Parts: sequence; structure tokens; C-alpha cells
Amino acid sequence: MELFEAIEKRHSYRGGFTDEAVNKEDLKRIVSTGLAAPSGCNAQTTRFVIVDDPAMLAKICAMHTTNIAMQQAKAMIICIVDKEPQPVYEDKSFAIEDCAAAVENMLLAITALGYASVWIDGWLRVEGRADKIAKLLGVPDGKIARVLLPIGRPAEKVTAREKMPFEKRAWFNQYSRKS
Amino acid sequence: MELFEAIEKRHSYRGGFTDEAVNKEDLKRIVSTGLAAPSGCNAQTTRFVIVDDPAMLAKICAMHTTNIAMQQAKAMIICIVDKEPQPVYEDKSFAIEDCAAAVENMLLAITALGYASVWIDGWLRVEGRADKIAKLLGVPDGKIARVLLPIGRPAEKVTAREKMPFEKRAWFNQYSRKS
Repeated sequence: MELFEAIEKRHSYRGGFTDEAVNKEDLKRIVSTGLAAPSGCNAQTTRFVIVDDPAMLAKICAMHTTNIAMQQAKAMIICIVDKEPQPVYEDKSFAIEDCAAAVENMLLAITALGYASVWIDGWLRVEGRADKIAKLLGVPDGKIARVLLPIGRPAEKVTAREKMPFEKRAWFNQYSRKS
Repeated sequence: MELFEAIEKRHSYRGGFTDEAVNKEDLKRIVSTGLAAPSGCNAQTTRFVIVDDPAMLAKICAMHTTNIAMQQAKAMIICIVDKEPQPVYEDKSFAIEDCAAAVENMLLAITALGYASVWIDGWLRVEGRADKIAKLLGVPDGKIARVLLPIGRPAEKVTAREKMPFEKRAWFNQYSRKS
């Protein structure tokens, strides 16, 4: 799929998935786009656990009570970051930015391959869910599950949510509160 | 350009630019991909100032002493975020993630259109540079310049820096320290 088409078509998907499995080659290809994402000082801080084992999937799917995509996911990609990232520039680390850039690449790849997903982040950070999932996946103590992407073939047609127009968010040469 | 090709070809570019201007239509198209990026709870927190005025460009270019792409930029996109973002999910905001996802979309668009850029972030956060640039651009007090992308036609051929292989950063179903 052409880049600009993938960017336009990508949207958060919280609906049901068909029974079709997500094959390992596609999962590797999706994660490879996460590996190729930029990272501050090329530190490549994000790690990825791909879940496609039915027993493991069932345990994580059972944790979400409302999001149907989470409940019916045929595979998941879980992004792992350090709880206390090492500084790489002055006293700064860019682990959150690194992870987000990797997630965006993967969401575009998921779209281009005809799957659907949604960026699960805040939900992981409450009720100890990130730690519970990290424990299931054997993640070392100093690291945490930061973002989770449930993946499958969408069973419903969903379109992207409306976005504010260009002139409300972008301007040439001077920030404008007027437009 | 095909999505996977754009992801593979994108790389940080710190070299010189040709004299060719970046036309306004391309700049709008690049920023439109930033607008289309996902954001936590669809809050669309990032704002964008596109700099192509030669006098304004010259002021910002003069601030960097080592990065040739910054010194010779023919245009810039500056991402603006709230200094204290509003919570959108429980007590959490996702402004940093929102901005990073927008930046990654724009870097891919820059690549697909034959331009080059580099994600400038940490440099802005020292010596008051983010505030100086925000003041030049008329950014309101509660907001800050978070990421800057210098843009132009690359005058040199640069390839992507080496990345760790898949098996060092990604695994199926269990995090592995061994591979």
C-alpha cells in the first residue's frame, strides 16, 4: 500500500475480528517496521513480545471487559520499555518517543496488510495490568509493558474518527490562535 | 512510495541540503500526515508551525553550531505541545506519544517526497532553545516547541544507521534475555 494511503486509512479499531489467524510472517514483518523506527541517539530502546499462542492470548484477552478488539485479538504485539530508561543525551532519555514511533510504524504496517488494531496504553497503566502482563510474558523486573496492539482481520467496517482541519492545528511561520 | 519502502528508507539526515526550496504544497502534505496520526482519546494535542520564511529560517538555523542539516534547512516543521497537558484518560495525558506518532508520520512523508530530515528533540530542551524558538514563532505561554524537523533536498547520500537484528529485540510469546 502507498504510504499516504496507509496514513489516511489507519484508524483505531475496537470492533470484532474474524476467526482468521494472523500468520507469523506478517507478524514478523509488522514488528520489523517497529525495529526500523527512529530512536533517540539510535538507542533502540523498545523491545517487542509477539503473542500468538492461543493459551497466552486467552489470558490477556480475558483482562479487558469492554474493548471487543482486545477480547477477540488473534495476535498481540506488546512493546516493552525500561521502567527507568538510561539517559542518552545530556540527562534525557527518549524511550517514550522511541516506543511511540515504533508503534506508529507498526499501525501503518497493520493497516497496509489489511489487519486492524488500536493503540492500548492508558488501560495498561491502571490496576497493575502492565505488570500482570509483563509477568505472564517473562519480562525482566526493570522493564514494563508500555503499549499493546491487539491484531486481527476486522469483522466490521469502521472509518477513522473526524480530525480537526489543518487551519485549526497548523500555520506558516507564526503560531495563530485565531484560525 | 510504498509504505514498507518508506519505512526502510527513512533515516536521520544531518548533512547539507541543495538550494532547492521546499514548496508549500509539499509542506502542507507532510503536515497533513502529522494531523492524521493517532492521539490518545483522539485529543489531537500537537500543533504545527511550518517555517519557510527566509528571515525566520535564518534566525533558527543560526542557533545550531554543529548539525549541518539544521544550519542549511530550507524549511522546518516545529511541533508544539502543552507544557502541562490536560489528562484525557484517568489522570494521564499522552501528549508526548501523540507528538511522536505525528513526527514519525511526517518523517515517512518527507522520505516519500524525496526530502530528508532529522528528529531534533533533546537539543531543544537545553540552553532555553525551545523557549527562544517558541517566542520567535509567537507560541502562547502555556505551550512549548517539543520537536523540530529541518527539511530540504539532501545534497549527500546517507544510509540508515545499523539496527540490531530482530532476534535481539523481538520474541514470540516470552521475553527472552538469551537471544
